[in-house]
Amino acid sequence: MLYAQIHLTLPAWVHELAPDGVVYAGDQAKMQLAIELSRRNIDAGSGGPFGAAIFDSRDRLLSVGVNRVVPQSCSVAHAEMMAFMTAQARTQRFRLNEGEDNVTLATSSQPCCMCYGASFWAGIDTLLIGARAEDVMSLTEFDEGPLPTDWAGELEARSIRVRRDILRESACAVLRHYSESAGAAY
Amino acid sequence: MLYAQIHLTLPAWVHELAPDGVVYAGDQAKMQLAIELSRRNIDAGSGGPFGAAIFDSRDRLLSVGVNRVVPQSCSVAHAEMMAFMTAQARTQRFRLNEGEDNVTLATSSQPCCMCYGASFWAGIDTLLIGARAEDVMSLTEFDEGPLPTDWAGELEARSIRVRRDILRESACAVLRHYSESAGAAY
Repeated sequence: MLYAQIHLTLPAWVHELAPDGVVYAGDQAKMQLAIELSRRNIDAGSGGPFGAAIFDSRDRLLSVGVNRVVPQSCSVAHAEMMAFMTAQARTQRFRLNEGEDNVTLATSSQPCCMCYGASFWAGIDTLLIGARAEDVMSLTEFDEGPLPTDWAGELEARSIRVRRDILRESACAVLRHYSESAGAAY
Repeated sequence: MLYAQIHLTLPAWVHELAPDGVVYAGDQAKMQLAIELSRRNIDAGSGGPFGAAIFDSRDRLLSVGVNRVVPQSCSVAHAEMMAFMTAQARTQRFRLNEGEDNVTLATSSQPCCMCYGASFWAGIDTLLIGARAEDVMSLTEFDEGPLPTDWAGELEARSIRVRRDILRESACAVLRHYSESAGAAY
């Protein structure tokens, strides 16, 4: 019989890592959280080495995401997608910036081709990126997939600001740690 | 408090439209189901005018999907994504063609930039497309987003066969019906 229900979860430890009421002012504080999520996801064995977090215009945390592909048998469950979906479930808005003036996604590594495409529809105004796609592909066996040649320009053309290399070295350290320990990309 | 759960559903009517045990031999039978899903989704008021279905190597239906963006406040809930996720939940495989030799996705309209990217990771071998992106953008107000210049070639390069214009006119008729009736794209 057809399945008509999808149920995805984040690991329970996200509540400890990201308590209510904290303000994440500036790009680095936001990225620090995304990278910490990626590290913790490896150490807890709850998924791949990727983390993401979404913030509202007052620098308050709206949602977090970590990679859950293997534990949940779901190729869609990348960190950015989990962050988009949980933020939208919380706010009940399919465009997060409807009625908000600046929504930011911080992601520990450059979005793959799926998460890149999803970024156009989720309603974000700013995209903060830690490790580059080339870092992901040189430090791990994960594939980023094909993107438009001027992928950042396409985002900017639709009013999504892109800032790269935020704490890039820290983000790369987590990817390296993953490859050296648990390691095998799916 | 952070949300840590995502719950998405397909409308209950999918069980009537796609009963167990039917074999969908050939591209046209598969596309006919995808288009019928898109039409029914409009008429039932359960989402946007897009439908998708996934078949195993013996032409048996693995899953279906329809657009659920507005009713579920989720920008990820496109027809193709719903079909990927419900097929993966059913088979408990994050790559659908792991242990299968030919998995086919039929989608009533060309995948947008997000669903395009997701197609690389879901584990499909063949992609059947009804209406073209240009049809979607001329007949409705939906946006398809930016793709690599040779988007079909990128799929073929990763062993995903692409066949376009399958029942294109029928697929376009549903898009036209949508614009003339319920109509407004989100």
